[in-house]
Amino acid sequence: MSLLVTGSIGMDTVETPAGKRDDIIGGSAIYFSYAASFFTPVRLVGAVGEDCPKSFLSVFEGRDVDTGGLEIRPGSKTFRWHGSYLEDLNEAVTVEVDLNVLAERAPKIPGNYLDSKYVFLANTHPVLQQQMAHDLKDAKLIVADTMNLWIQTERHELEKLLKQIHGLVLNDGEARLLTDQKNLIAAARDVLKMGPKFVVIKKGEHGCLMCTKDEEFVLPAFPADTVVDPTGAGDSFAGGMMGYLATQGNFSSATIKRALAFGTVVASYAIADFSLGGLQNTSREQIDERWNHLKQAMSF
Amino acid sequence: MSLLVTGSIGMDTVETPAGKRDDIIGGSAIYFSYAASFFTPVRLVGAVGEDCPKSFLSVFEGRDVDTGGLEIRPGSKTFRWHGSYLEDLNEAVTVEVDLNVLAERAPKIPGNYLDSKYVFLANTHPVLQQQMAHDLKDAKLIVADTMNLWIQTERHELEKLLKQIHGLVLNDGEARLLTDQKNLIAAARDVLKMGPKFVVIKKGEHGCLMCTKDEEFVLPAFPADTVVDPTGAGDSFAGGMMGYLATQGNFSSATIKRALAFGTVVASYAIADFSLGGLQNTSREQIDERWNHLKQAMSF
Repeated sequence: MSLLVTGSIGMDTVETPAGKRDDIIGGSAIYFSYAASFFTPVRLVGAVGEDCPKSFLSVFEGRDVDTGGLEIRPGSKTFRWHGSYLEDLNEAVTVEVDLNVLAERAPKIPGNYLDSKYVFLANTHPVLQQQMAHDLKDAKLIVADTMNLWIQTERHELEKLLKQIHGLVLNDGEARLLTDQKNLIAAARDVLKMGPKFVVIKKGEHGCLMCTKDEEFVLPAFPADTVVDPTGAGDSFAGGMMGYLATQGNFSSATIKRALAFGTVVASYAIADFSLGGLQNTSREQIDERWNHLKQAMSF
Repeated sequence: MSLLVTGSIGMDTVETPAGKRDDIIGGSAIYFSYAASFFTPVRLVGAVGEDCPKSFLSVFEGRDVDTGGLEIRPGSKTFRWHGSYLEDLNEAVTVEVDLNVLAERAPKIPGNYLDSKYVFLANTHPVLQQQMAHDLKDAKLIVADTMNLWIQTERHELEKLLKQIHGLVLNDGEARLLTDQKNLIAAARDVLKMGPKFVVIKKGEHGCLMCTKDEEFVLPAFPADTVVDPTGAGDSFAGGMMGYLATQGNFSSATIKRALAFGTVVASYAIADFSLGGLQNTSREQIDERWNHLKQAMSF
C-alpha cells in the first residue's frame, strides 16, 4: 500500500567523532522515504530550492519512491542544517540552520496522492500538518512527528492536530515538555488523553517505548557497536515502522510492536555511515536478519 | 543454594521529589540480601557500628537471611550516606558521606560460610574483594560490583580482581571509565577481555545489557510509572539476579537472561517506596507476575 510522507529535504553539514561531511543529503523526508522503501512504495512530498544538487534528485533511483511530489522551487534555496555530535553522540548541537524553502508555503500534495492510505507527517508547523491530515481523506493511518518549538509556541494548534491523527512519534524530551511529566510512561499516558490511539517515545540509544490505552511496549535499541552518524536515526526509525505497517493492513498492538522492531533495526543501519550511506549499503535480507537477531537478543 | 553477599550496611538520609527520610536503613548488602531472599537463602557478611539502631537488625525477621556474618563493632560508627535525587531521579547527588566502619578492616567471613557456592562481592576496595574471592574456594559463581573511585585509583588491583571472578556488574558510567569506550557494547567487550565470562552494564531507567563472548542481551527497565526512591535499585537488581541464579545450578546465557529479567523486576518494586519499603510490600507471586508482564511488554 502506498505510504505518503511529507517532511524536509536538506543539505546537511555534519560533524561526528568519525569525521566531517559537507553538503550531504539529509532531511526527515529523505531518511524516512529511503527507510520505508525497503518495505513499500513511498510517495514523497517536499520542496527544495533551485540550488539543490542534481545528485540529490537521483538518490532514489532504482527504489520504489515516487518523487512526483518533490517541488523544485525557482528562486528559493534548499533547507540547510549544520549539526555537531562531537560533544554527545546521542544529541546533536545545531551549529547553524537556514530554513530557506521550509519557511515558505507548504509543498502541494499532488492530486494522484490524495488517495494515500498511510501517511506520515514529519515535523513541521502543526497548522500545515492539520491541513494535510484534513486533505488526505482516504487515509487509514496518519502518524505525525513534532518538535520542541511547536510544543512551546503552537501548543493549541498541536493539540488540534493530535485529535486528527492516529499515532504520534516524538522523543523523550519532547514528551516531557508536552505533558510536564518526567516519567515517560506517565507522559505517554497523558499524550493518549490528547487524542492519538498510540504514542511512540524515542529514546535514542536507549530504544523506544510505545503505549496504547491498554498496554505498554518497551524496546531497547539494537546493540550496535558502531555509530558513525546518528543523523536521521529517528526518521529512519519512523520510516521502517510506517513502511512495515503499510504492508500489514491492520494496526493491532502486535503489528505495531513488530513494526517498531523493524524501525529499530533500520535505524541501526542508518547510523552506521554518514547521510544515506548506511541505508544504501543495506538489503532487505539484512534487515530481516537483524530483526531476528534483535528478537533473539531480547528474549528470555 | 546459599548465596553469600558482602557489602555495606548504612544509615541513609534520602531526598527525592516524593519527600525526605532520615536515618533509614540502606547499603548495598541490605538491598541485595532482601532482594535475593525472595529466591534463595542468603548469608550476609558486613559490619555496623555500635550506634546501629536495633530496628535495623530486625529487618530480615521472617526471611531466609542468615545474619551470622553481621558484625556489630564496638567503638565504631555505622556507615552513613545522605543523597539527593531532587535534580535528577536517575542519579543521586551525594550530599554527605561518612564511611565510618567501612574505612576500617573488612568484616570476617564466618567459618561456616566458607563453603558458599554463590558469591556477590558488592562494591568495596578491590584488594578486599580479591581476598574474599580467594578465601571462598568452593564458589562456583563469583560476581562483583565496583565503582568509579576504584577504577580511577586502584585500577591495577581491580584488574587483578577481574581475573578471579566470573561476572562483573557495573553501571554505564563506570563501564565507560574502565574501558575508555563510549559505546557500551564496545565497552562490554573490552571488559570481557579483562577476565570475566560475562558483564552486566546497568543503565538505570534505561535497563541493562549483558555480554558474553558469544552474544549480547539487551533488556529495558520495567515500564514503571511510579518512582519514589531509586536508592538501592542497582543492588536490588543484583540481588534478584543472583538470587535466581543460585536456584538454577547452571550459568548458561539463557539462565543469566532470565536472571536479569528477575533482577529488573525486583528493582522495579524496590524503587516504589523509600528504603526497603518497596520490597517489604512485595511477594514472590507479584515478582513472577511482573516478570511475565515484562516478557509480554517486550515480545514482538
